[in-house]
Amino acid sequence: MRRSIATVCVSGTLEDKLAAAAAAGFDGIEIFENDLVVSSLSPREVRERCADLGLTIELYQPFRDFEAMPDPLFRKNLDRAARKFEVMAELGVGTMLVCSSVHPEAVDDDDLAAGQLSDLSDLASDFGVRIAYEALAWGRHVSTWDHSWRIVQRADHPSLGLCLDSFHVLSREVDPAGIADITPGKIFFLQLADAPYLRMDVLQWSRHHRLFPGQGAFDLAGFVDLTLAAGYDGPLSLEVFNDVFRQADPARTAVDAMRSLIALEDAGLPGFPDLSGYAFTEFAVDANSGPELRGTLRGLGFAHTGQHRTKPVELWEQSGCRIVLNSAVARPQTAAITAFAISSADPSQSLQRAEALLAPAHPNVREPGEAELAAITAPDGTSVFVTDSANDWRNDFLPTGSTAAGAGLLGTDHLGLAQPFDHFDEAGLFYHSVLGLSPLSTEEYAAPFGLMRSRALTNKAGSIRLALSVSLLRRGDWAPAVSDPQHVAFTTADIVTTASALDLPRLSIPDNYYADLAARFALPDDFVSTLRSHGILYDRDSGGGELLHLYTPVLGGRVFFEILERRGGYDRFGEANAPVRMAAQRHSRLTSSSVRP
Amino acid sequence: MRRSIATVCVSGTLEDKLAAAAAAGFDGIEIFENDLVVSSLSPREVRERCADLGLTIELYQPFRDFEAMPDPLFRKNLDRAARKFEVMAELGVGTMLVCSSVHPEAVDDDDLAAGQLSDLSDLASDFGVRIAYEALAWGRHVSTWDHSWRIVQRADHPSLGLCLDSFHVLSREVDPAGIADITPGKIFFLQLADAPYLRMDVLQWSRHHRLFPGQGAFDLAGFVDLTLAAGYDGPLSLEVFNDVFRQADPARTAVDAMRSLIALEDAGLPGFPDLSGYAFTEFAVDANSGPELRGTLRGLGFAHTGQHRTKPVELWEQSGCRIVLNSAVARPQTAAITAFAISSADPSQSLQRAEALLAPAHPNVREPGEAELAAITAPDGTSVFVTDSANDWRNDFLPTGSTAAGAGLLGTDHLGLAQPFDHFDEAGLFYHSVLGLSPLSTEEYAAPFGLMRSRALTNKAGSIRLALSVSLLRRGDWAPAVSDPQHVAFTTADIVTTASALDLPRLSIPDNYYADLAARFALPDDFVSTLRSHGILYDRDSGGGELLHLYTPVLGGRVFFEILERRGGYDRFGEANAPVRMAAQRHSRLTSSSVRP
Repeated sequence: MRRSIATVCVSGTLEDKLAAAAAAGFDGIEIFENDLVVSSLSPREVRERCADLGLTIELYQPFRDFEAMPDPLFRKNLDRAARKFEVMAELGVGTMLVCSSVHPEAVDDDDLAAGQLSDLSDLASDFGVRIAYEALAWGRHVSTWDHSWRIVQRADHPSLGLCLDSFHVLSREVDPAGIADITPGKIFFLQLADAPYLRMDVLQWSRHHRLFPGQGAFDLAGFVDLTLAAGYDGPLSLEVFNDVFRQADPARTAVDAMRSLIALEDAGLPGFPDLSGYAFTEFAVDANSGPELRGTLRGLGFAHTGQHRTKPVELWEQSGCRIVLNSAVARPQTAAITAFAISSADPSQSLQRAEALLAPAHPNVREPGEAELAAITAPDGTSVFVTDSANDWRNDFLPTGSTAAGAGLLGTDHLGLAQPFDHFDEAGLFYHSVLGLSPLSTEEYAAPFGLMRSRALTNKAGSIRLALSVSLLRRGDWAPAVSDPQHVAFTTADIVTTASALDLPRLSIPDNYYADLAARFALPDDFVSTLRSHGILYDRDSGGGELLHLYTPVLGGRVFFEILERRGGYDRFGEANAPVRMAAQRHSRLTSSSVRP
Repeated sequence: MRRSIATVCVSGTLEDKLAAAAAAGFDGIEIFENDLVVSSLSPREVRERCADLGLTIELYQPFRDFEAMPDPLFRKNLDRAARKFEVMAELGVGTMLVCSSVHPEAVDDDDLAAGQLSDLSDLASDFGVRIAYEALAWGRHVSTWDHSWRIVQRADHPSLGLCLDSFHVLSREVDPAGIADITPGKIFFLQLADAPYLRMDVLQWSRHHRLFPGQGAFDLAGFVDLTLAAGYDGPLSLEVFNDVFRQADPARTAVDAMRSLIALEDAGLPGFPDLSGYAFTEFAVDANSGPELRGTLRGLGFAHTGQHRTKPVELWEQSGCRIVLNSAVARPQTAAITAFAISSADPSQSLQRAEALLAPAHPNVREPGEAELAAITAPDGTSVFVTDSANDWRNDFLPTGSTAAGAGLLGTDHLGLAQPFDHFDEAGLFYHSVLGLSPLSTEEYAAPFGLMRSRALTNKAGSIRLALSVSLLRRGDWAPAVSDPQHVAFTTADIVTTASALDLPRLSIPDNYYADLAARFALPDDFVSTLRSHGILYDRDSGGGELLHLYTPVLGGRVFFEILERRGGYDRFGEANAPVRMAAQRHSRLTSSSVRP
């Protein structure tokens, strides 16, 4: 199907928006009237610009407060429409969106609404224009799709049909199933937007919190299927009002938007190969952070087991945990997780799927004889390598002969990656559509330096887990916490034994935390005492599952490690303890204090 | 009355919060439990730190989900409370806030609630602690102040009283008038928070959008009076959950908070002298922006009428419009409005009021023989000079002999000042409490590079108007619009004549705007044609009042001028046209195009 995007979805001037839509591969656009009104391009120039860019103009929108008005206002409205039809003729756009009235003088009279819409459609047809009538979820008298359809049926005009907007339909209680029974040809236009379920005024919800398909909670595939059943063959067009997207780089947003449609259609996309786990996590280090990370890895029971044949890159291992330290990446000031590798049952299919979903390929400089290790770039800039389960990449490393002492670490449980503010929802869709990770619920919590939002993703097997986080507001000058922290969490089957075997400082957890823990969960004193003595944090879910976890201090200004033990099916990430960790990290940086039990 | 602030109001670790509260002059604090739990300070250390800082700990809060529970859970709750009473003893705090339960197993039984609260109060009194019971607006069974008061009366325990939180009381429909009849001594604690009226879930409203008194829409003075009538003599304590404050500099936020209480109490504050208007607006210029501003002022009909006796400072005048160009201020890159002066009927009283409200004094370097010109610093860093109507400051300037050609500009209508993201609400309270400007409604609109919020303030006479604006989200990298723009708007009695007399480029307004204007307001063609030929924008309010206004291009990277004519009592600032202006400014910067009609 053709793919279209409303200019209101992205930031910038109309020129910026058109360029972004074209570059992302859209076939067409909806012109949001305000974008045209403030533009220095004349309608004719817009038409030419679109033609040059290979974009069709699918819809002119919105025309407000038209139907069911007392006569003098109705006449004025027809005059107003005629002026817009003239603009549309210059633009070369054939369909106008008329949304249901919110005008205080609008009358609750379906016959009047149908009659006036019919008159409007007469006028429109003189200009070669069709009218797509849409029920706003907060329309004064018409606020549901079925009501708008009854009015369109009553008007029975060939130039009058429906515009169905998934937000307006799915945010209301009326069952959408009947959409399949709409007369073929009468759905003139389809607008798609996703959204999280929020308990708030529907207008504010719509104007600030819409998302691209797959980023929210709506069943958009089911919605599109209903319209297809009703014979809809127009474009799939995105209309997303989102506070973040409106101020983010439009080129990025448009690609995110296109990815959402490709994933929604799911036509001919390579499927998801099984992912068996993390092959390795790569840290960029320099002369300052390198020794600090090496020392910490040793203290965690890792050994430097391999040295890259041609590059200043070290492999550190312990059981199924693998860390690569790369000194060749120029990255000033802070250490960073620059890449991670996942083991796929079919790497080339994983990469084909990624490419089909517009995931940027990562330029990999490969020396002769080295393993092919293709990668894609995630929204936060991290490279995601995809390798097979044979782990051929390890042949690039010469064994050093060292063996890990071990501290009971078994493998990588998850990565924790702070996301850039503008790309948090993009990241969720990226990992969902490209790698097949399903988002768990989104959590919000108060951290010492502001509110945080976190979203965990996991594949069905739980072998690839990601914890993405972002500040609820973009950080300003007062942000003395670690900037964009990243971490790797390793699993152990027995955190107390592991903790005893560690030979390294760990993050100092305040006694107040343990006093509260004992009160909150009514835990036995000796258990709390054990936790306290090792700096282990604790969480319990409603099903009685438990998480025990501890942290190293922050290394190289940005990264740290976590060790965790999941008990009884605990499936989250200890988000409730994140403020404790963040305050302790701040304290540790101010005092350079950490505990070595 | 004593003044207190909950630690949750400000950002940072507990150490940061205590330091900020003390520096702002608070007498006490409420300890928000989470702030203690994550702190590396032991309760005893917190007590000592507070004592060192001269702060009392007024309240420990919150204790949740206590009352009206089935028996086994009730026993657990008592154990939980005992542990908290131990912590409170170490902290040396005598009152615990118990908020009404939201627990799914809580029973709707006032007798049970009263009985369990009575048992809790028995236990509390063993520790020398009092219980202040508060109805959360979203409590499961108890959600209004009168219901919590009935339960406290039923329990009839000397250690049990009420906590009244203005948000929970005023966000609900129950009349607060009856608060005055509460038995003297039974209001144990008073929490104050303001808020704008928002149509959203009350819990989200409370947790994200509270404001300090005077920043929202609640009648807090009336609320406090009711509690005083009931004999309340405890502290006035702020409990404000606000997304912006939670991530802003705590020292700034605490001063803002203290200012809100001083203004609320209004005890012994010097009154507001009448303000007759703007005396002058000062621009910092350098070798690049100076010539550009001078050229523009000449084109606007100004003349360089005075030269400062000792400094590289020029006075430019036309009728009642006065601009000062200051080349002595080091301000790289962009021109800026660094100061404005207002004429007060009693400057020293204006300054005394400002000082009482913690407005920072501006360090003014005055040469011998120069006029005393005291100033305060506004939240955005702008200096606000206060002068008398005799305008003695003009004696510091030697007349140049030049006279303004004039273009019909009469005086300064308003200043438009973009505010730093973290200090928008602070700025509103500052101008309201210090200068007596009343906020008009807050407007939000979609601008090309993101959503904007604007708030206009004015004194009763309309002689001092300010238009403050801020991005709804802090700007990131994609923000190609003018950064933090500032402007001065001058009035004219006849904008078309003035426009014809101007000799300067003005901002190029797109034809699309005029086509839409004609359709939207059904304006006569020749009127629209006149507007278009001069680049004049148009707005009309619901009462038929009209605004005609035009803009210069952006000068020196940041500042511009507006000329406006208000007709028929139009009292706003043409916010609807701001996106047109912003898109035109962007276009003008990309193309260096502007029109010289």
